[in-house]
Amino acid sequence: MNNGRNLTLLTDMYELTMMQGYFKNAHANVDVIFDMFYRRNPDGNGFSICCGLEQVIDYVENLRFNKDDIDYLSSLGIFDGDFLDYLADFRFTGDIYAIPEGRVMFPKEPIVKVKAPIMQAQLLETAILNIINHQSLIATKAARVVHAAEGDGVMEFGLRRAQGPDAGIYGARAAVIAGCIGTSNVLAGKMFGVPVLGTHAHSWIMSFPDELTAFREYARIYPDQCILLADTYDTLKSGVPNAIKVFTEMREQGIRLKSYGIRLDSGDLAYLSKKAKKMFEDAGFHDVTIAASNDLDENLISSLKLQGATINSWGVGTNLITSKDSPSFGGVYKLSAIQDPETESFIPKIKISENSEKITNPGDKVIYRIYDRDSGKLFADLIALKDESYDENQDLLLFDPVETWKKTLMKAGEYEMEPLLIPVFKDGECVYKDRPSVMELQDICRKDLDRLWDEAKRLVNPHHVHVDLSRKLWDLKQRLLDEYHGI
Amino acid sequence: MNNGRNLTLLTDMYELTMMQGYFKNAHANVDVIFDMFYRRNPDGNGFSICCGLEQVIDYVENLRFNKDDIDYLSSLGIFDGDFLDYLADFRFTGDIYAIPEGRVMFPKEPIVKVKAPIMQAQLLETAILNIINHQSLIATKAARVVHAAEGDGVMEFGLRRAQGPDAGIYGARAAVIAGCIGTSNVLAGKMFGVPVLGTHAHSWIMSFPDELTAFREYARIYPDQCILLADTYDTLKSGVPNAIKVFTEMREQGIRLKSYGIRLDSGDLAYLSKKAKKMFEDAGFHDVTIAASNDLDENLISSLKLQGATINSWGVGTNLITSKDSPSFGGVYKLSAIQDPETESFIPKIKISENSEKITNPGDKVIYRIYDRDSGKLFADLIALKDESYDENQDLLLFDPVETWKKTLMKAGEYEMEPLLIPVFKDGECVYKDRPSVMELQDICRKDLDRLWDEAKRLVNPHHVHVDLSRKLWDLKQRLLDEYHGI
Repeated sequence: MNNGRNLTLLTDMYELTMMQGYFKNAHANVDVIFDMFYRRNPDGNGFSICCGLEQVIDYVENLRFNKDDIDYLSSLGIFDGDFLDYLADFRFTGDIYAIPEGRVMFPKEPIVKVKAPIMQAQLLETAILNIINHQSLIATKAARVVHAAEGDGVMEFGLRRAQGPDAGIYGARAAVIAGCIGTSNVLAGKMFGVPVLGTHAHSWIMSFPDELTAFREYARIYPDQCILLADTYDTLKSGVPNAIKVFTEMREQGIRLKSYGIRLDSGDLAYLSKKAKKMFEDAGFHDVTIAASNDLDENLISSLKLQGATINSWGVGTNLITSKDSPSFGGVYKLSAIQDPETESFIPKIKISENSEKITNPGDKVIYRIYDRDSGKLFADLIALKDESYDENQDLLLFDPVETWKKTLMKAGEYEMEPLLIPVFKDGECVYKDRPSVMELQDICRKDLDRLWDEAKRLVNPHHVHVDLSRKLWDLKQRLLDEYHGI
Repeated sequence: MNNGRNLTLLTDMYELTMMQGYFKNAHANVDVIFDMFYRRNPDGNGFSICCGLEQVIDYVENLRFNKDDIDYLSSLGIFDGDFLDYLADFRFTGDIYAIPEGRVMFPKEPIVKVKAPIMQAQLLETAILNIINHQSLIATKAARVVHAAEGDGVMEFGLRRAQGPDAGIYGARAAVIAGCIGTSNVLAGKMFGVPVLGTHAHSWIMSFPDELTAFREYARIYPDQCILLADTYDTLKSGVPNAIKVFTEMREQGIRLKSYGIRLDSGDLAYLSKKAKKMFEDAGFHDVTIAASNDLDENLISSLKLQGATINSWGVGTNLITSKDSPSFGGVYKLSAIQDPETESFIPKIKISENSEKITNPGDKVIYRIYDRDSGKLFADLIALKDESYDENQDLLLFDPVETWKKTLMKAGEYEMEPLLIPVFKDGECVYKDRPSVMELQDICRKDLDRLWDEAKRLVNPHHVHVDLSRKLWDLKQRLLDEYHGI
């Protein structure tokens, strides 16, 4: 999936300097737990879509410092021979738990939990963050765009403006998982088995003596998938009439029109689409596709829908593939527990900050997703400690971890709990074997989105799903904060 | 440079459907000229930095549809056997000209000019745009950040928030070309021979019983490059005093402190840096490095400088590696001429648009950069037709292509002209052999920036360098516009 690349050195230098530091210290092989989590959904969204685990698995399974890598590190003059020998034999031997791809997730939840000797867990930080941050960002943006399109097909068209090849390739993957019906990116199509889409550009039209000839030639070669770009010269005076002429000729020749229509790539899309639709209707074409592209995003699509635009197919490029309004996903990777070398038990760790939002949740944690049994809708997520047990046959008291007086009693029988983290690696072996294909992940994602209340899917000011802490985790956190303050 | 990957299918589907269309048409092997150019500098900057050519060369040289690729395309059911046979033997046989990497460039100039049979030139579109758009975007952003740092070192630290592995790798490359002194990205360091930098994270501190022990251990292992992260618990009450304690111990042990200091990663950087600097001064440490990170960008750095912050080393992550305020570079690839199959001469082509900014410049073009001989500063760029000749010993009349009454007469002897486009491929062979290393490109870029007036480098409302059209090109453009309007 990494397309033959060795990504072992895809890491920040400080991971390696810290590793050598641990190596030269007594606690080199102490086990630790790191959590990847994030603090805020991009674009003020009500949720994010978890994405990228497949590439993380691939990265971890292929983590090998080859001779070239070792020679390079040696050339830097700061790593000693014994440490480089250790790297040459490096294998990941720890455990990884994660939220599966395509699932909805919320701030502060551990998305990926790594339990491993400190040197190993430290090394994984950068690549895990890079991969999951990127793909979750694009999946979340794509979910917004698809939501705005209200059931129309959305095509991912952004490769030429993506931030490098991978951003195009894995961005397309994430976009399809979150609901895009296909991508223009042929390599992504090949790598992930997702639909690839695309017809022609202005250069096709300009390479012929006139637009009508260009349209006729295109229709001759691709009669089954004939979306003609209508804005090269003049959309309503030339493009649409010429397209109608070509489709009429096809109809007269007895060719059955399957997927046919026009693409608008400039101008006032609301006005042009309505006028074009009328012209097609008048010519007896009632199921024409009117596709639009040109710097679209979820807000523009919503606005066009409100204006009664007759567009029924959307090509979204730059703004989706770069998540333009919010081009980074703020996932972080923080130490949450460290093994006591004496007792071998894990000591919970907390990262203090003056900004209370940045204070971490300590300990070895799990997530339960809580559904309202009647509606099947997602009610809240509960972060708990791993050694707690829950029983759906008992009432469950949830409370807000900040405004603790806000409480909700879930009555036994009225709710369901689903553990959200799944084991991915156990003792260095990948145990997540039956991994879904990208199109299966799209299905998983769609079902998860169906379980969100509409209010949580609003593009602006959505309802924020509660993410609560268990009483035991909340108490632990308070105790560590008090200890820090010497209370 | 593509790290072993086959990127042949890194293209939009419509390039392939158009190619098959050309293949099945008489003009399949007609030569055309495509220009890549862009319309606006990102972030309102006064210029952009051209970057990515090395990876474009690599892409073009390795363009081969292997059996897997052909099988995949065949499986889509829309490509015929004869066309797939053609692809199996595909080689690029055309010419490419480009602005060299690290050079300053301006809107509307042809950055890359491809002269090749139409099928070949069409195929190259997506990858050229993807690669050059990405790297030029990040180089331009990095130039802004480096400018704001006024000579302090800027380190590229963004891998974990980059849009996928390539965005981290090639983003680091572009950032170093534009003046960053190094990157945290070890793989980029290895691939491009650029300095890699980084010390430790909060997890290093948290893995020890206390901060002082963590600092001491770090200093023991890395005495020569000892930048201690000071904000894990409390910057001024704990981090800075502990760092001073450790450096004092080192001094007492006779260890010569080379690169030593602290990194601030949270809090009020202006206040904390000034207080910390005072504490170090009071302890007799006068050449301490005070590094800062935490969501920095050029505006924040400028503001911190204005506030008298004593930071002298900047780690810039997310905002640089994603070009956060402007996360895409709007390069496009447009047909500018097409060969007449009869006469074999090139017929200039123009793309009309209601938006005059989007009307293209027709014909086979070159760029001359014009310097003021006295100051050595860049005065203007002149886009001309390839068959025009200029003589520095004659006066040169420049005029604004829109407000044509604005004219400047460059007197013979008072200006110098430099052709900007260089031949990169000739008949499919790469003729650009002595390509500079990334560190050499950094030098080229620095020299080019030195030739810009300060006013063109301002972060806000910069002077916009004139990009003029030659009289002959201007006349051609008017003629084609008039022809289009039937005048």
